[in-house]
Parts: sequence; structure tokens; C-alpha cells
Amino acid sequence: MAGIRVAGVGLTDFGESPERTGRDLFAEAGLAAIDDSGVDPEDVEELFYGNFMGEFAERQGHQGPLMAEAVGLDVPATRFETACASSGAAVREAVKDVRSGEADVVLVGGAERMTNIGTAGATEGLAMAADDLYEVRAGVTFPGAYALMARAYFQEYGGSPEDLANVAVKNHEHALPNDHAQYRSEITVEEALDAPPVATPLGLYDACPISDGASALVLVSEAYADSHGIDAPVAIAGTGQGGDRLALADREYLARTPAADDAAREAYADAGVDHDDVDFAEVHDCFTIAEVLALESLGFYERGEAVGAARRGETTRSGELPINLSGGLKAKGHPVGATGAGQIAEITRLFRGDHPRSGAVPDAETAVAHNAGGTVASAVVHVLEVAT
Amino acid sequence: MAGIRVAGVGLTDFGESPERTGRDLFAEAGLAAIDDSGVDPEDVEELFYGNFMGEFAERQGHQGPLMAEAVGLDVPATRFETACASSGAAVREAVKDVRSGEADVVLVGGAERMTNIGTAGATEGLAMAADDLYEVRAGVTFPGAYALMARAYFQEYGGSPEDLANVAVKNHEHALPNDHAQYRSEITVEEALDAPPVATPLGLYDACPISDGASALVLVSEAYADSHGIDAPVAIAGTGQGGDRLALADREYLARTPAADDAAREAYADAGVDHDDVDFAEVHDCFTIAEVLALESLGFYERGEAVGAARRGETTRSGELPINLSGGLKAKGHPVGATGAGQIAEITRLFRGDHPRSGAVPDAETAVAHNAGGTVASAVVHVLEVAT
Repeated sequence: MAGIRVAGVGLTDFGESPERTGRDLFAEAGLAAIDDSGVDPEDVEELFYGNFMGEFAERQGHQGPLMAEAVGLDVPATRFETACASSGAAVREAVKDVRSGEADVVLVGGAERMTNIGTAGATEGLAMAADDLYEVRAGVTFPGAYALMARAYFQEYGGSPEDLANVAVKNHEHALPNDHAQYRSEITVEEALDAPPVATPLGLYDACPISDGASALVLVSEAYADSHGIDAPVAIAGTGQGGDRLALADREYLARTPAADDAAREAYADAGVDHDDVDFAEVHDCFTIAEVLALESLGFYERGEAVGAARRGETTRSGELPINLSGGLKAKGHPVGATGAGQIAEITRLFRGDHPRSGAVPDAETAVAHNAGGTVASAVVHVLEVAT
Repeated sequence: MAGIRVAGVGLTDFGESPERTGRDLFAEAGLAAIDDSGVDPEDVEELFYGNFMGEFAERQGHQGPLMAEAVGLDVPATRFETACASSGAAVREAVKDVRSGEADVVLVGGAERMTNIGTAGATEGLAMAADDLYEVRAGVTFPGAYALMARAYFQEYGGSPEDLANVAVKNHEHALPNDHAQYRSEITVEEALDAPPVATPLGLYDACPISDGASALVLVSEAYADSHGIDAPVAIAGTGQGGDRLALADREYLARTPAADDAAREAYADAGVDHDDVDFAEVHDCFTIAEVLALESLGFYERGEAVGAARRGETTRSGELPINLSGGLKAKGHPVGATGAGQIAEITRLFRGDHPRSGAVPDAETAVAHNAGGTVASAVVHVLEVAT
């Protein structure tokens, strides 16, 4: 099995740029990743690309070849769609291809254009990640679904809106120096608690924004990096994916995310690490409650214990286990198809030392990216390490 | 590298069933494939699933987990979208996973629900496989795009509407005994030539129908088949994928499909065969001209020579190289996401002897499946062999 290195990363700003097309966004991120990597573009063998709602927001399917052209590559290109985990799934297949020797150099990433269709349009588009027949037509939106999960969590384990507000406050604070982040403003617990309700118990500050943006990574085999003098100190050491019923009504638990449990278990085993080895993580906090559920699925906390983690300061940048140093989906933004690969781009920069929050975790060696689709009917987890 | 066997196949009827949901269709095909394979459903490790226009036709994205649930599987599930090559791309990733040892048993397939939105709706949906900014908004539909390719072919190499009519006549005749085919009626060259024009030089009989349907395959490693006593005499010996510019205007040639050239070259090399070794093939004849272009990309004919192949009887079921014994997309139908895996299901049955056209090619050992997306901006080619 070949070792896999992140040779280059590229990110657009995440935020509101309704005038920019998906191809424009991905061209910026893809070219930046290739430039950052030092890889000869002629050596790129494949494009694995994640996008969720291109048909809805841009009337554009078949984006694989479109995005290859956007970055000037003449390679096979495949689009992956697993809702908000689309580019996480793309990274996973890219990792498997490099590991098995199918390819030495792969471009992987994703993009999403969302704000051009407005908040109502984006909410309608996002609903396509839920079960149309048994959820959406019954009136369930994503904020509503996550509110059900939060209520179930509070009922089963305890916890309060104030606990969740602390997650939002933390991630806003983390995003402050991040050039790519959509929100770079501090908020207080009081402001979060006083914000308009979205779906009780979740308020406006419990929800991530609607965002445009793109992300890209150049993944190479260790052998390629060595033979081409590519400086790529960050390795993808493990990958895992899990699945669950699409509709909440079909699941045994509302306050757990077993798909992420499975993905984490597989990724840890694949990397030969344990959750105790993890120094920091980027997790899929589309809502504050989602960060809580992620921390328990990743094994960092027992069931019912993660809800107070941010309040206790354990997951802040000066805590024992900093979570979402980038600002997370909550403050950095969530251009759906870009999020999974974007998390890995952030982790890579944190390890390399060229991220404004790089100093937060001295001597960090192991990190995790947790990317979820829908109400975690899909989950993809990757373990990243500083290569030794 | 592990050998890969097709352990089971499942197909719904292709045709008009607007009342059936995508999940209903895929459940039928998926369960049939598992049943056909003799594999314990508990052994299935992943679902790789192809779908093109679920967001448009059913307002349903994130179909991976939905389809896993539909067939009763609790496994990671990923959706692939490369327009009309979506399940071909899914098969390719499944093959790579089994080959590399990532999985021993994979369910792969696809589904598409199209007739529920009517012909105008489906045409609008299919247009999302073309470049929205530079083709669709300029008025290009898929029949129009393939008409441009046919005109360019005629201009560069010669050929006539009568040549193309012979492709349609052949594929209709091939479909006659195929239980799953949408059209089981003979047509004549005169009828095809007299049919209403769709986009000159293409008439109604040059175009495949709009179809609902699903297909599925159970792929297993040779080692799994051997150790579990699974009778799986058909192997997937080679896989290849190619990409091209999405918009015709950005390409060097209109009368060639270089993405399929690349996919075929890679698949042949992967299987260690040459085009001369191929005994029969299923090719992506969404329009009659597409079959002609496919035969040249697959190396069966020099440029400009394939257009007369059906007229000369070379590609009929009694010819030297029978093409589309299933009836092809033209007569069997084209439920977009189901087509690529469906071609492999047909080839498997032809090899196994349980297809009504199985007798057409005595002692056949090697076959090819050619699946294309859009105007062949994506192409996936697989080589199948009778395992020795």
C-alpha cells in the first residue's frame, strides 16, 4: 500500500459571491492547489470532484469534465454526491486510488454555488439531502431535522441551549484570523441565546451560513513526492465511511450518529491510531448540535458528555482538544460540495504552519476530519498525520 | 491484484412506469442481483450507485443511503454522477475497490425515473449534462448536439441517413426477444427514414426513448467466489475512463469521441487484450450516430468506416461483430443512471447463456461495454471475459 501525501491545497474565500459560477470558484481553488503543490499539471491523472446541488442552483450536472476543463486538465473526471459529504467521499476514493497504485497524482475537491438562489432557494435545495417522500413533504427542513436531534439529545442526556451557544461562540472566535472564513466576528453566549429561533431549540447562531466556495487538494503517492522532490509533510493515514437510513424516522436513535461511529472506527483502524492519539479535529458542525454528536461518534467523549465540552473550554483553541480551529462550518462557512476537502485543506495548513491558527496545538501529530451528509446518513472520516 | 467476477445481475424492465419511484425501481434490481448472485446479503460491504437527474425528476439527492435502505443493506453508499455514464463510473470504482482488496463483495448499479416529468421535462433535465452557459442557453438540446456530430461526420467521412437508419433497424430487431426491452417491435429502413425529424439529419428513430428503469450487479473477488462456492463465470478484466471538454464548441473534432478512445485504450491495456479479441459489444447508442462513433473509438473500425457497418450486416446478430444484442439504448431503453451497469448485466447474461440472444455468438470469450456521458465528455469502457 502506497503512502498518501497532501502535496497542495487550495481554497477560495467562503462566503457570499452570488455572481461567481461554480466553475469560476473551482478554477480558483484547483489552480491554487496545483500551484501550492509544485506538481507538474501534466502529471495529474484524475479529478475526483464533489458537488451537491449544481442541478438545482445552476442547472448544471455532469460537472466532472466541466471542472477538469476549468483547471485546464485533460483527465477523466468523476463527480461524487453524498449531500454535504460529497467532497469527503471524493477524497476517500482518491485516497483509495493512490493507495492501490491506480494513480500517483490526483486532484480532488469540490465546489458549491448557493447564494445566487437566495436563502429560501438554498433551503429548498438542501432539503434534497433528506428523504423527499417521508421527510420533506411532511415539512421537515434541515434546521427542523437537527432541532429534533437536539431535542432528543437534551431529553436523553441533558444539555441546554447555553451549551450549544458555547459551541457557536468558540467557532466564531476560532475563525477570527482565518482569511477564508465567512464570519470573522466575535459573538457572545448572550447574543447567541437572544438570536431569533430557527427551529427550537436551535437559534440563528446554532446554524451555519449559506455559502459559495470551493476547495481542492493535490494528493500524491509518497513515492511520487520522494522522486519529484515535492515537499509534502502531511499524510492521509486513514479513511472510513459509514451509512445510515436517510430518514430520521427510520433510525433507532435520534441523538446518535452511527454512520459517523462506523466511519471513525474504520478510519482509526486504517491509520492504526486510537481516538486518544488525536490532537485536534475539524468536524461537521452544520448546526452546533452536529458538533456535539460528532465528538461522541469520534470517540472523544462518552454519550452525553460532549454537549458541555465547549462550555468547559476543552474544545477551544487553548483546550485539550481544539475542535474546528478553522471556525468550522459555523463560522468559516459551508459551501456544501467544498466542505469535506476544505476541512483537509485547513488541517494540512494547520500542520504545515501556514495557517493563522497553526500555533494552537504545539507538536501536533494527528488530526481528524469528519464530514457528514444530510442528518449523517452519510459520514466520511479521514485521519491525517505529520509524516515522519 | 484480485480478479473480479460478476456474481449476480438484476434488471427491471426498461420502459414507461411513471408511477414507480427511483427507490422502488432500484429495490427491484438490487434485490434481484443479490438473489441471482447467491451471496449472503450480510457480506455486501458497499453500494456504488449511479443516478443522473434525481434532483430534477424527483427532488431527491443523497440517493446513496436511500438506495442502500431500499435493498435492506446497512453499508456505506456513494452516488456517482457522470451524466449518462453515471453507473459506468460507479462500476469502475467498484472494480477498483475489489481489485485492490478494499472490498470482497460490492453492490453496484443505478436507476433513473424520467417519464414522470414528461418528454419536455426529461429533455430539459437531460440538457443538464451539457454546458449550461455555453450550450443550453444557446438553444442546444441533446438531439441537436448529436445532430451536429452526425453532420460533421457526414461532411468529413461521408455516410447517410440511410446508414443510420440501418443501425436503428438492427437494434430494434435485436431487442425483439429481450423481456426487459422498452421497444420490442421491428422497424424498416423506410419507416426510419420517413419518421418525423428530431434534429436534421436525425429523425425519431435515430433517438433512444425516455425510460424508467434500474440495474444492479453484485461484484465479488475471485477469492470470495471460490471460497463461498459462488458460480460466477464472467470476469471484469479491464476498466478505462476518459474525459473531454463538456461543450462541443471547445473540442477539436465533432466527428470523433476522444474520451472513448482513451477509455478503450486504457481498458484494453488493463485487460491485456486488443480490439481484435472482442467478440461482441454493448455500446452507448443514445442516438444512432453515437453507435457509429463508439465503434470507431473502440478500434473496431477506421475513422469513417463504421457508419456503414449495420447496413453491411457486420454488426447484426449474425454478423462478424454483433453490436447491442440487447437492443441497445435505442430499443432496450435508456434510463440514464441504469444504463452503464445495465450493459454489463446484459453481457453477463449473454455469456452465461441465460439471455435470449445468448446463442448469437458461439464460443464468445471477450466483450466490451461502452458507456458515455453527454456528448461523450465522459466515457467508461469495461472489458468482460469468460473466466477460464
